[in-house]
Amino acid sequence: MNYDIIVIGSGPGGYVTAIRASQLGLKTAVVERDSLGGICLNWGCIPTKALLKSANVFEYIQHASDYGITVKDSKADFGGMVERSRGVANGMSQGIQFLMKKNKIDVIKGTGVVKAGKKVAVTGEDGKVTEYSADKGIIIATGARSRQLPNLPQDGTKIIGYREAMTLKSQPKKLVVVGSGAIGVEFAYFYNAIGTEVTVVEYLPNIVPIEDEDVSKQLEKSFKKAGINIMTNASVEAVDTSGKGCVVTVKTAKGEEKIECDVVLSAVGIQANIENIGLEELGIVVDKGRILVNDFYQTNIPGYFAIGDVIPTAALAHVASAEGIICVEKIAGHHPEPLDYGNIPGCTYCSPEVASVGMTEKAAKEAGMDIKIGKFPFSASGKASAAGAKDGFVKLIFDAKYGELLGAHMIGANVTEMIAEIVAIRKLEVTGHELIKTVHPHPTMSEAVMEAAAAAYGEVIHL
Amino acid sequence: MNYDIIVIGSGPGGYVTAIRASQLGLKTAVVERDSLGGICLNWGCIPTKALLKSANVFEYIQHASDYGITVKDSKADFGGMVERSRGVANGMSQGIQFLMKKNKIDVIKGTGVVKAGKKVAVTGEDGKVTEYSADKGIIIATGARSRQLPNLPQDGTKIIGYREAMTLKSQPKKLVVVGSGAIGVEFAYFYNAIGTEVTVVEYLPNIVPIEDEDVSKQLEKSFKKAGINIMTNASVEAVDTSGKGCVVTVKTAKGEEKIECDVVLSAVGIQANIENIGLEELGIVVDKGRILVNDFYQTNIPGYFAIGDVIPTAALAHVASAEGIICVEKIAGHHPEPLDYGNIPGCTYCSPEVASVGMTEKAAKEAGMDIKIGKFPFSASGKASAAGAKDGFVKLIFDAKYGELLGAHMIGANVTEMIAEIVAIRKLEVTGHELIKTVHPHPTMSEAVMEAAAAAYGEVIHL
Repeated sequence: MNYDIIVIGSGPGGYVTAIRASQLGLKTAVVERDSLGGICLNWGCIPTKALLKSANVFEYIQHASDYGITVKDSKADFGGMVERSRGVANGMSQGIQFLMKKNKIDVIKGTGVVKAGKKVAVTGEDGKVTEYSADKGIIIATGARSRQLPNLPQDGTKIIGYREAMTLKSQPKKLVVVGSGAIGVEFAYFYNAIGTEVTVVEYLPNIVPIEDEDVSKQLEKSFKKAGINIMTNASVEAVDTSGKGCVVTVKTAKGEEKIECDVVLSAVGIQANIENIGLEELGIVVDKGRILVNDFYQTNIPGYFAIGDVIPTAALAHVASAEGIICVEKIAGHHPEPLDYGNIPGCTYCSPEVASVGMTEKAAKEAGMDIKIGKFPFSASGKASAAGAKDGFVKLIFDAKYGELLGAHMIGANVTEMIAEIVAIRKLEVTGHELIKTVHPHPTMSEAVMEAAAAAYGEVIHL
Repeated sequence: MNYDIIVIGSGPGGYVTAIRASQLGLKTAVVERDSLGGICLNWGCIPTKALLKSANVFEYIQHASDYGITVKDSKADFGGMVERSRGVANGMSQGIQFLMKKNKIDVIKGTGVVKAGKKVAVTGEDGKVTEYSADKGIIIATGARSRQLPNLPQDGTKIIGYREAMTLKSQPKKLVVVGSGAIGVEFAYFYNAIGTEVTVVEYLPNIVPIEDEDVSKQLEKSFKKAGINIMTNASVEAVDTSGKGCVVTVKTAKGEEKIECDVVLSAVGIQANIENIGLEELGIVVDKGRILVNDFYQTNIPGYFAIGDVIPTAALAHVASAEGIICVEKIAGHHPEPLDYGNIPGCTYCSPEVASVGMTEKAAKEAGMDIKIGKFPFSASGKASAAGAKDGFVKLIFDAKYGELLGAHMIGANVTEMIAEIVAIRKLEVTGHELIKTVHPHPTMSEAVMEAAAAAYGEVIHL
């Protein structure tokens, strides 16, 4: 069968690319070996948000009396939470199926391998191999999986990755989370909220280490208040799984410590799925485990493109989607602008939530920039008080000379919804003063953005 | 005593104005007859949001099993909710006290009356009158109160306004809410959520009548699903309070209907506090119950200014604050731009929330504009599914020729936080295509903004 475009992988990179390609009049197929929607829909963004919502609601119930509500007896039904999460994921995956049909995109079930001559060989479940060709381009969007560390060999039951973490048969009493990026802290929050004893082990000096240091410190404070045990500057030397549970040997500045637990979650990053998909045979250039591409996602071999977690850009669903759209718009002869990687938001959905975009204070200083910082704490926000969500702040970093908004760092309730404003105004090159003069509705958490800008310029009202 | 600036009224207009004046180096006093923070902090925005949060949490508890949580026995403790709400309001009011002190603003307790010669006469609680002068300007920010209708004479116990509605001694079994603007629907949602039987009576064809018709229809649908009785095109002819409760006579197209209830909430708008403050004596021009001012809030008498609910602009806290800031910046010799009243967001905090800015579809069509509409329902949003908040949508209205974003209308969870993005990008004159190319984080409700823009241009992915 001949197509204009074949996309390998149907995650948020692949399926979005396929839809946009189809909108542009290209005859499109998508190859998927597992469930439509990829990790994001089935084992990532969506089911974890469902679990986190359950944890959120459970936390409200634990603190019901704060809101004038009497609750006699409540229990987190772990199985019920997992079931709800799977239901949400399955519903979304079915939604993608509908979208494929509606956009007349062929879904080819099986494992794809790129071949010379703009071909893809797909091995079906029955072992049968079928070849398809794509005249205008083959787009590799095979995503990534949980990274394996030598000291933390995942066995799927005692030492697990994110995938098992969202479908455990029973709630662990004690959990050690290794790594405190988005995945690590989201699960740490979830399990702690529903009553598991959680320890987070982070190799670097701060949790959520890619965030601004102030954010990391606030999250650590909030997590400790919630009862999570945090170990930073700490490395896991070994895990002994020979007994009933696990014994984790953690090395810190103070020496070695042994922590007992039922389950260890390895959340130390991801690894691109670039093996056995034909890259070597075709001579497609790979560096440090990722496929190299140009500004429009073309590999070194004409007609072969790659987007999302398999290329060296930030491994985020919205990045993959944006890359795929630009990739096929270029193929279709449009003139899309290259993606501005300096303006990609990142969100972490624990409680308090974390959201950021652009430079951290440290990065701006290291770049020798002259900056102005404005910070507004939610403790001074009326809406935050009314909502009982006073933890956190908005921190904005401006270029001192031109007023350019270099970075925004937020922690608190709802900040994952608030960061979009910052991305939009940075795209339009707003200045600090324009932001101060943007009338934000009262009472909202979003007022903190305006107030943080005002704080940078000595015009803050509520501090 | 002499000041540069005297502000009469310490609501979100007055206290913000005073702080900004003080920042600008002006010696400032604020006159307040009641609690610092005015209606907004003490009897409006803030305490209602506290009550609504309690209702929200109570709703989660009622639907706990949807989230995998077992709750055996729960009860809304009405008194506890009211108490929490009062506590939040009092805390905020104390915060304003702190801000006044920090900014070296004198707080003059009493009722202020403007006098000739840039003077204010303040009658204290002891009846003593003291005169103060303000060389640079007197700013009237006395706000507004609940409007009284002849057919709905408020007695404070059976027929009440918003103020009593948030401090009732006991929860009414049956409540009739007259008027379905922001105040009406927020209380309707609150009381219904905690178990009161609520009927909303609206004179116009739609509830939240200033919103886009699609939003009104969706809110009506959600409210009906939640069990609220909605009567539109209906007017209250009389209320008989002679018995134990009330009997409300409502006239609709079908004839007259009598509704029994414990309490009637009159939420038919507000009335500016312009009486007995010296306007007539000074000859300050008033029209239709509001003080007339120019672009920088000067009345017809030099040296006398007015901002907030006493002038004919939208009676919203954030409008009053913005007006006050512009007013004193101008007095201080700065060159502020006049406020763009076409870009003021409005928020309603019932569930689902409502937020909007700019023109409705109807208004744009009536203005003879050629428009493109993009709508994205939350039922197609992954985050909304995960959060169990699939009701609602984002609707964007663009000028067909230039791509200007004329209006945004949102209903759903979190939209009151999402509207800030729209206000900011409209200030910067974004086009539809720029919005489509703004990478929104996944998974968030805010992606619906990007998708709605894409829908207007035939590029929507998830529909």
